[in-house]
Amino acid sequence: MAKLVYLFKEGSADRKALLGGKGANLAEMTNIGLPVPPGMTITTEACTEYYRLGRKLPEGLLDEVKSKLAVVEEQAGKKFGDLANPLLVSVRSGAMFSMPGMMDTILNLGLNEETVQSVGKNTGNLRFAYDAYRRFIQMFSDVVLEIHKYEFEEILDRQKDEQGIRYDQELTVESLRSIINKYKELVQAKTGKPFPENPFDQLAMAIEAVFRSWNNDRAIVYRNLNKIDHDLGTAVNIQSMVFGNMGNDSGTGVAFTRNPSTGENLLYGEFLTNAQGEDVVAGIRTPRPISQLEDEMPEVYAEFVRIARLLETHYKNMQDIEFTIERGRLYILQTRNGKRTAQASVRIAYELAQEGLISREQALLLVEPGQLDQLLHRQIDGEAVLNVVAKGLPASPGAASGQVVFDADEAERMGKAGKAVLLVRTETTPDDIHGIVAAQGILTSRGGMTSHAAVVARGMGKPCVCGCEAIQIDYVKEELNIGTTIVKKGEVVSIDGATGRVILGQVPMKDPEISAEYTALLEWADQYKRLGVKANADNPEDALKAREFGATGIGLTRTEHMFMAQDRLPYVQQMILAESLEGRQEALRHLLPMQQNDFYGILKAMEGYDVCIRLLDPPLHEFLPSVEDLLVETTTLKITGENPALLEEKLQLLKKVRGLHEFNPMLGHRGCRLGISFPEIYEMQIQAIFNAAAALTREGCKVLPEVEIPLVMDVNEMKFFRERVTTIAKETMDKEGVTFHYSVGLMIELPRAAMLADELAEFSDFFTFGTNDLTQTTFGFSRDDAEGKFLPDYLDNKILKDNPFITLDRKGVGRLMRMAVESARKVKPEIEFGICGEHGGEPNSVRFCHEIGLNFVSCSPYRVPLARLAAAQAAISDGEIVGTR
Amino acid sequence: MAKLVYLFKEGSADRKALLGGKGANLAEMTNIGLPVPPGMTITTEACTEYYRLGRKLPEGLLDEVKSKLAVVEEQAGKKFGDLANPLLVSVRSGAMFSMPGMMDTILNLGLNEETVQSVGKNTGNLRFAYDAYRRFIQMFSDVVLEIHKYEFEEILDRQKDEQGIRYDQELTVESLRSIINKYKELVQAKTGKPFPENPFDQLAMAIEAVFRSWNNDRAIVYRNLNKIDHDLGTAVNIQSMVFGNMGNDSGTGVAFTRNPSTGENLLYGEFLTNAQGEDVVAGIRTPRPISQLEDEMPEVYAEFVRIARLLETHYKNMQDIEFTIERGRLYILQTRNGKRTAQASVRIAYELAQEGLISREQALLLVEPGQLDQLLHRQIDGEAVLNVVAKGLPASPGAASGQVVFDADEAERMGKAGKAVLLVRTETTPDDIHGIVAAQGILTSRGGMTSHAAVVARGMGKPCVCGCEAIQIDYVKEELNIGTTIVKKGEVVSIDGATGRVILGQVPMKDPEISAEYTALLEWADQYKRLGVKANADNPEDALKAREFGATGIGLTRTEHMFMAQDRLPYVQQMILAESLEGRQEALRHLLPMQQNDFYGILKAMEGYDVCIRLLDPPLHEFLPSVEDLLVETTTLKITGENPALLEEKLQLLKKVRGLHEFNPMLGHRGCRLGISFPEIYEMQIQAIFNAAAALTREGCKVLPEVEIPLVMDVNEMKFFRERVTTIAKETMDKEGVTFHYSVGLMIELPRAAMLADELAEFSDFFTFGTNDLTQTTFGFSRDDAEGKFLPDYLDNKILKDNPFITLDRKGVGRLMRMAVESARKVKPEIEFGICGEHGGEPNSVRFCHEIGLNFVSCSPYRVPLARLAAAQAAISDGEIVGTR
Repeated sequence: MAKLVYLFKEGSADRKALLGGKGANLAEMTNIGLPVPPGMTITTEACTEYYRLGRKLPEGLLDEVKSKLAVVEEQAGKKFGDLANPLLVSVRSGAMFSMPGMMDTILNLGLNEETVQSVGKNTGNLRFAYDAYRRFIQMFSDVVLEIHKYEFEEILDRQKDEQGIRYDQELTVESLRSIINKYKELVQAKTGKPFPENPFDQLAMAIEAVFRSWNNDRAIVYRNLNKIDHDLGTAVNIQSMVFGNMGNDSGTGVAFTRNPSTGENLLYGEFLTNAQGEDVVAGIRTPRPISQLEDEMPEVYAEFVRIARLLETHYKNMQDIEFTIERGRLYILQTRNGKRTAQASVRIAYELAQEGLISREQALLLVEPGQLDQLLHRQIDGEAVLNVVAKGLPASPGAASGQVVFDADEAERMGKAGKAVLLVRTETTPDDIHGIVAAQGILTSRGGMTSHAAVVARGMGKPCVCGCEAIQIDYVKEELNIGTTIVKKGEVVSIDGATGRVILGQVPMKDPEISAEYTALLEWADQYKRLGVKANADNPEDALKAREFGATGIGLTRTEHMFMAQDRLPYVQQMILAESLEGRQEALRHLLPMQQNDFYGILKAMEGYDVCIRLLDPPLHEFLPSVEDLLVETTTLKITGENPALLEEKLQLLKKVRGLHEFNPMLGHRGCRLGISFPEIYEMQIQAIFNAAAALTREGCKVLPEVEIPLVMDVNEMKFFRERVTTIAKETMDKEGVTFHYSVGLMIELPRAAMLADELAEFSDFFTFGTNDLTQTTFGFSRDDAEGKFLPDYLDNKILKDNPFITLDRKGVGRLMRMAVESARKVKPEIEFGICGEHGGEPNSVRFCHEIGLNFVSCSPYRVPLARLAAAQAAISDGEIVGTR
Repeated sequence: MAKLVYLFKEGSADRKALLGGKGANLAEMTNIGLPVPPGMTITTEACTEYYRLGRKLPEGLLDEVKSKLAVVEEQAGKKFGDLANPLLVSVRSGAMFSMPGMMDTILNLGLNEETVQSVGKNTGNLRFAYDAYRRFIQMFSDVVLEIHKYEFEEILDRQKDEQGIRYDQELTVESLRSIINKYKELVQAKTGKPFPENPFDQLAMAIEAVFRSWNNDRAIVYRNLNKIDHDLGTAVNIQSMVFGNMGNDSGTGVAFTRNPSTGENLLYGEFLTNAQGEDVVAGIRTPRPISQLEDEMPEVYAEFVRIARLLETHYKNMQDIEFTIERGRLYILQTRNGKRTAQASVRIAYELAQEGLISREQALLLVEPGQLDQLLHRQIDGEAVLNVVAKGLPASPGAASGQVVFDADEAERMGKAGKAVLLVRTETTPDDIHGIVAAQGILTSRGGMTSHAAVVARGMGKPCVCGCEAIQIDYVKEELNIGTTIVKKGEVVSIDGATGRVILGQVPMKDPEISAEYTALLEWADQYKRLGVKANADNPEDALKAREFGATGIGLTRTEHMFMAQDRLPYVQQMILAESLEGRQEALRHLLPMQQNDFYGILKAMEGYDVCIRLLDPPLHEFLPSVEDLLVETTTLKITGENPALLEEKLQLLKKVRGLHEFNPMLGHRGCRLGISFPEIYEMQIQAIFNAAAALTREGCKVLPEVEIPLVMDVNEMKFFRERVTTIAKETMDKEGVTFHYSVGLMIELPRAAMLADELAEFSDFFTFGTNDLTQTTFGFSRDDAEGKFLPDYLDNKILKDNPFITLDRKGVGRLMRMAVESARKVKPEIEFGICGEHGGEPNSVRFCHEIGLNFVSCSPYRVPLARLAAAQAAISDGEIVGTR
């Protein structure tokens, strides 16, 4: 039989299979010179052997434990079962893979009627000792003897009731002794045996219990779910306990190697003398800043500073360290990478690299890309006490406070008068755009993450909470009901677009800060990333902002947002309501110069970069009033009989709107289907693009327009449109006497387009994946419906691990994407692939885009920095998942 | 240079590349001994050479034509350009692949001022000769000289105007001469040359024109579209003309080798003596039955009978033959497979096989599966004159006439009173079911091929026309407007569900006929097919009908149709409106015995066969009143102030309905998503299935229930449901003390399910493709929206070749299916695959299902025979496309 027990100092981090994850890590810490409380690990092979023998401890195992224990006793300066200075130990399971379903920890093993007295004496706290003993009996009985802890709690509760007390800490030593006696009686009654007094018996029983726990029901289910081999077995860690409450030369504390809030390179933390960790939590005494430890115990402090440096150097990251001082001796109980704010994260990564402790690659991997987004928006001060009254969907990040307004016109008026307003609507429509522009933020009671309000707000970088179903808006009374709370027009409400919180009153905010470290880090990112990062922008302002944030092109310009502007909507409606081609063309003549002007502005702002312009996408009824509004209006007019002419007009409109009604607008007459039915609309847009390109070219501005066809499902659609684009481009260049480069591509938003990518490549210079729609069609669910209704059930029940609209689904959607890329590149290796939409700014999805070899991602301007970092991380780890924190 | 010209007798059917399709066929007919008017074919190689030489006729070509012409002259007994008995010829292009975009035929080439006289004399009809000459000049000038025929028609029209006549046949010889002179003047003016008088010049020019036509714009576009090689070239066919108007020993006629209406094995057709084909068309004289030709010209008749047999034997199919008799000599001008009725098709195929002329396999390939459907429904008599006033979607085949009724209750009342009624509604809802049952047929003005009316009607085998937007229903006046026509309640209207026609008044109908041949043929089909054929049925009556039509199982039972029944709807609504689990369970307790009874009936009807029961699929709001109706009601109640309590109740209901409102119900909270959110609903259904199965088992009836989970997108859904099904099955069997076999599977309706088929296979015994939904999600269009709105544009513009809801899309949807089958069989070879829904009863789609190796198709009961035949055809041709007609 091989060696079955390893002292911590005999192991190492790379022996996880043998020592389990926990054992290997304890060994690692010990070996880099940390004063870890000494202990040993029983190997996983011992566990396997236990089962091979039919649930019998391997011969010699206990002898080996005993002999190692002697070494531990020596290191700890205590003896197991000793009456003067007894060694207490913890016993924990620890498999190769972390398994939350397994056995709990047993603490303070080694306590009995005698040693409890010694611990009381040594700590000067008999009550502490008896309380620890009580807990030990309960824990041991539950885990080892399999007596449900509920039965012990009943005894405890009865005792407290009898004494008329409420909290455990009010129990006296006498009461605890009485409870302990009852516990032992219970054990005797249940097992027919007394509770084991001999520490070594306790230890042997605990070891076997850990081995047994490998095959308890929870563990088996967990392994099945996570496809972990049932034959691996678990290790057992036996570690000496240390106590910080053994006098004024003892203590306990927690410290970060750098400031987790600002990132400043200064030890940051707190400690308490003569205390256990529990005392800090209980809040009875106030901990003191770590720097004061220097005055109290200078040598211990110096040692701690040395260790803190050592840990940073070893783990190449800021550490969060728990320590205990027992009689002047420092012990490190745990170290882990410290949590930090976004600001600290950037500064720490940058400075660690500048200090030469880590490479630039490693620095880039240290920052969570998602955090960067926060830095570009105003945020609620983390210290503030908030009156959160509701929660909606976090539709667009950033915080906003303002006077509540229920009408877009009023929002605009008040905004112009210099007031901060929050626009609150059931849903927003294109008619509300001017109100959205004027408002600090938007709050809606209906609609999902892709509702009008959400999309527009994200585009503008404006905070938005939507689909907040708890609020009810009474437009007539001009008030807002949240449960029993009523908010009247003009009262102040705040929203947090990053979490969906709705807060009463003004909240303190922090402005965004772009530090030098931030800028430098992103410049490093650009040197590593292989993916291009473009932005989605529908106007010159957004385009310029995107450029400032580092975007190298526009991956998506949505032309429908332009159609929704107040000055165009009448012409758009005229176009839709026209009964003939001539009628539509008349309206289009008005729209052409406006669209041309739009494109002129964006192309100019992005001089030298690609600008991908997607032709009209949404169904036409989105530009008309709703059936519901018209139904109420016409019913009212019918009954009152007041205005027959208006009734007739509204009835006509209702008829047209009904005619355009669709059962499933997402799957309806939209995208390039509009261009097939009404080629003149697309032709106007194409003409406007090329007119703008020609004008700019003549002005000496280099433009790179890309015409994108949405919702393509068949190669004949692309043939049809490509030919039109080519013709109009040629005519325009001939007429204007200029030459400019342009390209034609399509959006892959439908499974069929992904399946036919090779055929489509023949007629396309580029493809971008519209993964929002592609996710909707691949899963067969509508985002607006799913997120409000059944998706929460799916996430709660773990049927789906992630929301596929936030994190790209690799198995389904991702596989379709990979197929498309591979098949198209086979016939046209130079074809460009990108992704636009929200996944383009989500780190995991960016990594996937890198893996399948896309050329670029495109996201909203505010997410460009995040995408740059995520792209760099993907390139650095090159497809392997690397834990960045 | 190889031989450039082939006499017909020198060619053969397999030389299409060299002689073109037409030339090869003329050769074939000649070689099997048919008296085809003699002629020759100039090869495609000559055409290629023409282009190689820079558009010059190859040297020696015209000499070769001349020398072959001598042979033709001899065979025809006439001479080209001869004054006594001139040979006239037709000149036609004929490429390897049929190309409708190419040159028209030139007839009567060889006519000039002299030969026209001879023809006049020989036919005894100078007017005929001059009219032929006029037409020849016009045709030649158009095709060869490229003078637009419009200019000739202007001359013709002017002449008629001057003479004050209306029809061409009123023109005298004099007028025709005058027109011919003007034609020639036009040619002189346009070309600077006289119209060619020399027949051989005419011929040379015509040959070159055919070669030129190979590269005209239409032909190039056609070849591009159809991916035909531009280098193939075209052949030229030169064939002698024959005339049936050369006296009483001449004539013309058309005949079928068997009766195309009944299939009876008797020559069927008609003829006219001393006439040209045009005379038959003009209707001046009445043709006589072909049998009378025996009295008139016994030898010719005997010859024709011999040839008719020969042709049937050669082409192994009933033939449609055109013939001309010129001076006692019979010529076959054309033969082709004859069109026939469904009834004739079945009888002919069966009898040809019984006669030993063809094999059973060939017989099965002779019948168009789509025709079988007709035989099971009443049809409009083909002879009837119809007053068609509108056209809707052909939603469910069969014809129906009845008094128009606008209300389901009234339909039921009148139906019970023994009246034939036609239920006319804007759309139908579950509330209308009793009216649909009572009606002869259903007509709706809105909704597509999968609307409620359409689905229910098809299930019942009841005629239905839906989405007929031309009709407007006024429920208040109880009338129907179709343009200016008004139909009042009680007036009779007919519909043809196979074509979508809406007809005023009663129409004569034919009852379905199931012949012995039909039954025998389908028995043969069952011996060849490899696919199983099951049916979709929601009740015992349909299940029994399906069994009668030859279904060997139920591939889909939709449980929601049961929920929609009048006696259940209140409980279903109670379940939906319940705010708590208890409330839902209370309602479910009422539904359980009803569902159990449903399943009992179906399982019993299908004793010994699989019955696949799909758990609840549609979104819950389908069982509630619509938002629109409620809006109108509440607005009315608000304004009138009449009934505040009712208003409050309706407002509550409106709120709930609004809460259930979905933007895209097709992609919403439906399918197994309901079972995740409300497990108790699915558990009730599963319990009902197994209770029924247990009861039947105890009665000694063998049942094979299959539980099917709809709209699955992830493997965790299947894990979740499989575990519940297994538990309930076990509990039920234990409790009832019986054992029965059951299986669990899912519907692949979403691309993601297809992509994950291998993973899903682990938890499934079978998969069925729900290709209606799979088509919707793969293409990203909703059938209801597409068919009414943009799909017609797509089909008109040939962007899509077929409606993918009717013919399965192989490239996109089909590829997903194939991937699913292959990946799932790799991990579980025994897994069963089927298809349910409309594609399961469409011949092309059935063939595809056979090709990718599905185990069965399932379709509506009335389509079972069709599917059996289509499956047999697929097996016989085994994946190759064989022209069945």
